[in-house]
Amino acid sequence: MDKLTLANSVFATYAIAAAIMILKAISMSWLTVLRMMQEKGGFRAPEDLRKTPLNPVPDPKQLAPNERVERIRRIQLNDLENLPFFLVAGLLFVMTDPSLTLARWMLYGYVVSRLLHFGAYFTAQTHEVRATFWTIGSLILIYMTCHVLVVALVR
Amino acid sequence: MDKLTLANSVFATYAIAAAIMILKAISMSWLTVLRMMQEKGGFRAPEDLRKTPLNPVPDPKQLAPNERVERIRRIQLNDLENLPFFLVAGLLFVMTDPSLTLARWMLYGYVVSRLLHFGAYFTAQTHEVRATFWTIGSLILIYMTCHVLVVALVR
Amino acid sequence: MDKLTLANSVFATYAIAAAIMILKAISMSWLTVLRMMQEKGGFRAPEDLRKTPLNPVPDPKQLAPNERVERIRRIQLNDLENLPFFLVAGLLFVMTDPSLTLARWMLYGYVVSRLLHFGAYFTAQTHEVRATFWTIGSLILIYMTCHVLVVALVR
Repeated sequence: MDKLTLANSVFATYAIAAAIMILKAISMSWLTVLRMMQEKGGFRAPEDLRKTPLNPVPDPKQLAPNERVERIRRIQLNDLENLPFFLVAGLLFVMTDPSLTLARWMLYGYVVSRLLHFGAYFTAQTHEVRATFWTIGSLILIYMTCHVLVVALVR
Repeated sequence: MDKLTLANSVFATYAIAAAIMILKAISMSWLTVLRMMQEKGGFRAPEDLRKTPLNPVPDPKQLAPNERVERIRRIQLNDLENLPFFLVAGLLFVMTDPSLTLARWMLYGYVVSRLLHFGAYFTAQTHEVRATFWTIGSLILIYMTCHVLVVALVR
Repeated sequence: MDKLTLANSVFATYAIAAAIMILKAISMSWLTVLRMMQEKGGFRAPEDLRKTPLNPVPDPKQLAPNERVERIRRIQLNDLENLPFFLVAGLLFVMTDPSLTLARWMLYGYVVSRLLHFGAYFTAQTHEVRATFWTIGSLILIYMTCHVLVVALVR
């Protein structure tokens, strides 16, 4: 049977996990926009100081870093360092024909670890909490990638 | 018919859109290089202040942020926040077997929105112009991803 | 024959190259963690100044940029600007059915260029050395992407 089709439950599991992670990543952009509007600051481009309907009273301070906005940018950067690699590693992992049970633990486990990481970072939990969730996700990613590498090398 | 082959017009549409977006992303790196050479500055690594054929008269000021270089870096960061997710979401979207017409509107629409976003950012248009093009692309990405999620969940 | 299966040597070549690049990217995160622990600094989130078992003597200076940590972050950012696009371009390149010899030169050549780029950046070699390795990788990526675009357009 072709592995890369939604009729394959393992692939469908990947598609669901990937879609959730992509929506999560996109949400960080929208959350940055929301926070910039709430804070009326945290902008980055000089032209954003022009007077417009969305920014009726421009002020040079609007270009200074704003911690509430920067927090979302840090979370987003963490996503960029992790999610694109998960998306490709997960797809390759599906092609090694893992059991559905293993695939669900790995793929949904990764999703859960990243959502918990977001919760910990967003609410400024102590570093150890955030680091624990990040580590779980990273170890899942390493496991899936090593699995792909071994299967591809010894086939 | 296998969906993941260039004989499938929907997949070929994706391949064309993806290739254009990848070339666009790579171009930002080269444009950064070009601007650093024009400005003889905007460098980031301390070792770039060594005297070399490409930098015959080093100066510590070369490590200071240079707005003409930083603008390209901001555009590139915006690409990193969007394009990798488009590349995977688009591939998954193809696998849901959309009509060719819908696929063309979504995939080429995204490409056009990102090229217009680049034009607006590069020429420092007012925030609202840039934000409009970004929003169109982001909504296309959200639509495609939600479509994948629903199809994978209800199959 | 289906191209997207590990039974296809060209695809297996891609899977090996992709897995190595993903592990390389993940390693940058772990290397950043390692350096932050060695330096006891280079942190970014304000909550990381709380007293915890991993940070028994917090100090506001820990949030200042630390060059040994920043170097790894620059390398990682360079990865983010390149690897996600390689991962997708490589997959699409496989689907154009290149010869195994060409695929090996392109995919493994890219991997080697990125590992050498890492070595040059990590050891702070003169800019020209690092730029040479980066350029080789970037040209391979451009070649593969243009190949995909042409094949998809003229099919």
